[in-house]
Amino acid sequence: MRQRLLEATVESLVDVGWSGTTTTVVSQRAGVSRGAQLHHFPSKQALVIAAVEHLTERRRDEMASAVEELPAQGRTRAVLDVLAAQFVSPVFFAALELWVAARTDPELRDAVGPLERRVGRETHAYAVDLLGIDDNRGRNRQLVQATLDLLRGLGLAASLSDDTARRTSILDAWAITLDTELER
Amino acid sequence: MRQRLLEATVESLVDVGWSGTTTTVVSQRAGVSRGAQLHHFPSKQALVIAAVEHLTERRRDEMASAVEELPAQGRTRAVLDVLAAQFVSPVFFAALELWVAARTDPELRDAVGPLERRVGRETHAYAVDLLGIDDNRGRNRQLVQATLDLLRGLGLAASLSDDTARRTSILDAWAITLDTELER
Repeated sequence: MRQRLLEATVESLVDVGWSGTTTTVVSQRAGVSRGAQLHHFPSKQALVIAAVEHLTERRRDEMASAVEELPAQGRTRAVLDVLAAQFVSPVFFAALELWVAARTDPELRDAVGPLERRVGRETHAYAVDLLGIDDNRGRNRQLVQATLDLLRGLGLAASLSDDTARRTSILDAWAITLDTELER
Repeated sequence: MRQRLLEATVESLVDVGWSGTTTTVVSQRAGVSRGAQLHHFPSKQALVIAAVEHLTERRRDEMASAVEELPAQGRTRAVLDVLAAQFVSPVFFAALELWVAARTDPELRDAVGPLERRVGRETHAYAVDLLGIDDNRGRNRQLVQATLDLLRGLGLAASLSDDTARRTSILDAWAITLDTELER
């Protein structure tokens, strides 16, 4: 039941945004009674943060299985695809709703901040691992951070229109840049 | 009066977000009567799009004057600062509210799309000009697009917390990368 509620919350954020997502809407979507819902999550804020956290973890598991199929040739480009998929996923669009709402809501921002920092650190460590580099050499750390910020920017662009072709072309060039600039 | 309304709209989006911004709130902030406001802008949508457009133009003028002070030494890094300032400005945060609202509102998205594409093209041309490169050589075009998407991602991160130190370090590394990778 908890999982159903969390998934319904993300779906609601993706479909109708932050302001359209209410605990009533979510309990209806999940087919869960209001009482049971309130028992698990006493507020919209608790529900939304738990949902984004839960599904971020699920996406990480999905990424982990994608990694087993990475080719030896063109590995950097393939890694970018694995990472980029995370930033054009429903979970990213749900998180975007949460971030933007948090910008003007100090209480929500206090709750979102620690989640964001943790996810940021984990994604960074994961990217370093996938690329097979030492984070402490040369400008490697900054290049990985730039890669993740680039992907966040591309995800934001993708939220407004399908710009897959543009994104593909940028990531092609970015992979070449990383292969030249990262110290192995 | 038109200008006062547009500036009050951006301030309202920055302070209280999309859902808190109503035509009533904006006319109060601007000290303009409801009637006069409705005469200039018949709907919230018309007001918000005009406001983001107007202030994007004003920021471009501000950038143009910053450019006159660009140093010959370390020019790429200085260009990144000029461009980055646009993505951590109140206009960016106001535009972010507009984009995220547009994601789940088809009518608004149809109106925002053309504005976004125009601003995107202009910012790209402007960046190419500042960097003093030929957009058609090598991977120059993709590297400029990647730079702007990186800055958008950094702007989104900056909307949640002050991460100036992290951004500075990333842009230091990125300036070195651009100087190596751009074909002059």
